[in-house]
Amino acid sequence: MTIDRDRLKRQMDFCREIDKEKEVFRQTYLCSGNRRENDAEHAWHMALMAVILREYANEEVDLLKVMTMLLIHDIVEIDAGDTYAYDTEGLKTQKEREAKAAQRIFGLLPDDQRDELLGLFREFEAEETMEARFAKALDNVQPVMQNDASGGRDWREKGIRLSQAIARQKKTAEGSRILWDEVSRPMIEKNIELGNIIGDAVLDEI
Amino acid sequence: MTIDRDRLKRQMDFCREIDKEKEVFRQTYLCSGNRRENDAEHAWHMALMAVILREYANEEVDLLKVMTMLLIHDIVEIDAGDTYAYDTEGLKTQKEREAKAAQRIFGLLPDDQRDELLGLFREFEAEETMEARFAKALDNVQPVMQNDASGGRDWREKGIRLSQAIARQKKTAEGSRILWDEVSRPMIEKNIELGNIIGDAVLDEI
Repeated sequence: MTIDRDRLKRQMDFCREIDKEKEVFRQTYLCSGNRRENDAEHAWHMALMAVILREYANEEVDLLKVMTMLLIHDIVEIDAGDTYAYDTEGLKTQKEREAKAAQRIFGLLPDDQRDELLGLFREFEAEETMEARFAKALDNVQPVMQNDASGGRDWREKGIRLSQAIARQKKTAEGSRILWDEVSRPMIEKNIELGNIIGDAVLDEI
Repeated sequence: MTIDRDRLKRQMDFCREIDKEKEVFRQTYLCSGNRRENDAEHAWHMALMAVILREYANEEVDLLKVMTMLLIHDIVEIDAGDTYAYDTEGLKTQKEREAKAAQRIFGLLPDDQRDELLGLFREFEAEETMEARFAKALDNVQPVMQNDASGGRDWREKGIRLSQAIARQKKTAEGSRILWDEVSRPMIEKNIELGNIIGDAVLDEI
């Protein structure tokens, strides 16, 4: 077998580059509340949650596609940084910063793999396919689960209001009605009662 | 659709429990050398390396299976702790400690999913299928890559000798002859020359 050494070098350059994702920290605390988590841990957790919770997608999904999307969805944050879900200023420039980062980082790969991963990243962002919607649902469920487990620490520290959370959480139901009705919604209601989330809106809107 | 709430509760209990994997630290440093990495980051990195490097498996592999194996392979360390590759005392009891941990942690899941993941974990450990061998190869290539990138920091700190590394690295070639010949082997040779690994054996043995 002839080896394309340039191809292998590009693949290994990418594998080394993405190690930096372990140093991009998110706002969400671990369940223990000990510290905030980073993007690599977050992606690992969700890819495995996709394996366990796949039966709850609103329609059948291609699991391999969902997992790969989840594994790569935050790679752009190596350059663009983590944009907090409720950072209205950061959100204005997020798409542009992340699109540029995607070009650079996925561009390290051989062209066929660059196109494969860029395609999956854009599919995730577009939220049109069932795979993307289910992946987005998990991207919402996982931090709610961790916030709930850590006693609502991040919500309390930031004074999060339900009116801020509703738009984002609406997407959970688009990917998984069951995970919204049976997991995220009860957790959010519980944390409103506990005073960890400020109940300034009506949850029935979702 | 009727929801089996007991099933969903067990699945969510498992999803919450595995969050602890983010607090199990390995000996390997990040490429930057800034700190050691944890099991969750390690598993994320390898599942994505499986996507990128799948063409180098010695035979064709079921990628979904390889990725799932890699995502779950260290979950047992939540109970059993990380056993360093060259810790001869720890290695004696590792299998037993990890088998017990697998029963408890995968046992949180509904029976069908417990059996599915236990089966994959045991398949990985048995190293008999191509998927398990390729997954094991990545489990060797990834730390070599990070050690090399960080200037051999972990090897130097522990005074690692080539004779210790040979047995473990032999498994890389069983999963991917190309990744051994073209990636791990040249990296190890380079680090022997640099004095980061003590060259007390002959690499041709592999």
